Amino acid sequence: MASSSSVRLLLLIVLVTIPASLSHTILQIPPNRHASEDRKLRADDNLFCDSWRFSVETNDAGTWDSIPSRCVGFVQDYMTGSRYASDSAAVANFSLAFGQAVKLGGDGKDAWVFDIDETLLSNLPYYEAHGFGSVTFDEEAFDEWVDLAEAPAIPASLNLYKGLQRLGFKIFLLTGRSEFQRNATVKNLLYSGYSDWERLLLRGPSDKGTLATEYKSKKRAELITEGYRLHGSSGDQWSDLSGFAVARRSFKLPNPMYYIA
Amino acid sequence: MASSSSVRLLLLIVLVTIPASLSHTILQIPPNRHASEDRKLRADDNLFCDSWRFSVETNDAGTWDSIPSRCVGFVQDYMTGSRYASDSAAVANFSLAFGQAVKLGGDGKDAWVFDIDETLLSNLPYYEAHGFGSVTFDEEAFDEWVDLAEAPAIPASLNLYKGLQRLGFKIFLLTGRSEFQRNATVKNLLYSGYSDWERLLLRGPSDKGTLATEYKSKKRAELITEGYRLHGSSGDQWSDLSGFAVARRSFKLPNPMYYIA
Repeated sequence: MASSSSVRLLLLIVLVTIPASLSHTILQIPPNRHASEDRKLRADDNLFCDSWRFSVETNDAGTWDSIPSRCVGFVQDYMTGSRYASDSAAVANFSLAFGQAVKLGGDGKDAWVFDIDETLLSNLPYYEAHGFGSVTFDEEAFDEWVDLAEAPAIPASLNLYKGLQRLGFKIFLLTGRSEFQRNATVKNLLYSGYSDWERLLLRGPSDKGTLATEYKSKKRAELITEGYRLHGSSGDQWSDLSGFAVARRSFKLPNPMYYIA
Repeated sequence: MASSSSVRLLLLIVLVTIPASLSHTILQIPPNRHASEDRKLRADDNLFCDSWRFSVETNDAGTWDSIPSRCVGFVQDYMTGSRYASDSAAVANFSLAFGQAVKLGGDGKDAWVFDIDETLLSNLPYYEAHGFGSVTFDEEAFDEWVDLAEAPAIPASLNLYKGLQRLGFKIFLLTGRSEFQRNATVKNLLYSGYSDWERLLLRGPSDKGTLATEYKSKKRAELITEGYRLHGSSGDQWSDLSGFAVARRSFKLPNPMYYIA
């Protein structure tokens, strides 16, 4: 093939003209490096940031305000590359497998609780324009983004949502968003493909100032009092999944961009 | 430099003699690939296995018996390369930072609970010889390994252990190992650098057949009854950290090799 020969000729010329130190670099790939054609992250930053992410996703890190400045490129790569989509899909697969194994009561009381932001909907377009969690949270700017009602669905979560509905689960949406955002939230959910939830629970005036863990536990407890069996619960924050009145199984979705207590 | 010139000449010869398709491979590194000089893992296996690990470490995967066969190379790389050491160190750092922030009572009742296997001691030499968690657990072979008392300390955990002792915490070791392994366990702990723990709690005859979550919760509850304040708890299994009578903060260490309910 003529084109292959010319590529080889070009390589030959390139290697003759570049310094020996550089040609050495081309053939020596450092171990455990996440190579990227667009960004050359330093291997030690990558290792540090991946371990930071481990600590965040297991909740070992506890409360944190913003991602480490040296991890902005790492989080950007993680969120916009294939890893975030792959991790989200793995969680959805384990969730659906569990849902399929549940023996439903057939009385309409089998329930699954979903958080919304970074669980059903992705605010990545907003965070792409706001430093991927490296800058202080701007509530006003985020509320404007919510009002646009343009957050796309996380594909694996939409698939899980519909799968659970087909199995017969009642879906409860339990979000830290406020009542004044109800219309925009409903509009966004429908726009991105979600429908037929049983109830959408938002923060009312009396929930103001309550920590997410407490607010969400209280709401789950009310559902249990109503006779619902909370088989599964999906959320990107540990405050979606811990506290009291927890579901039989909790599913932690990835989110290395922000933390809610 | 004469040696650099000969390297370049060698490269030249190599590139002229290898087929064009292969020379193409050398220069095109796929994005998000964990390059390794020893093993060439396929990028899709790597992505799959990293997401499987996410699900395991967050407990989304629930109960599992052995690592997926396609992930043996991935787990080997993770455990024997820099990632496991880095993740363990990150957890230890967050643990110590929390310990340093605790206001101790000064009455000798401030406590920290450690699991042993894959928390203080590493059984990696055993698992390296037994497929890194890809083969069914062989209790007899593992007990023989425990009797050798040669498991090395996880360096970051040893550092944390000593740091917490200096701060004044009482250390409780709470393990799934059995009473008949007490001597070997003490010998191994001392050999690898651990000393001066307050108490070593092993499974007695009455704990046989109890799930780890239940057994460990019961033991923690007894410590609380004795007046101890459980500030922190470190373990590689969610069964070390969940259930009841949990510590104020729980720290999940990495372990993609095995699962204990």
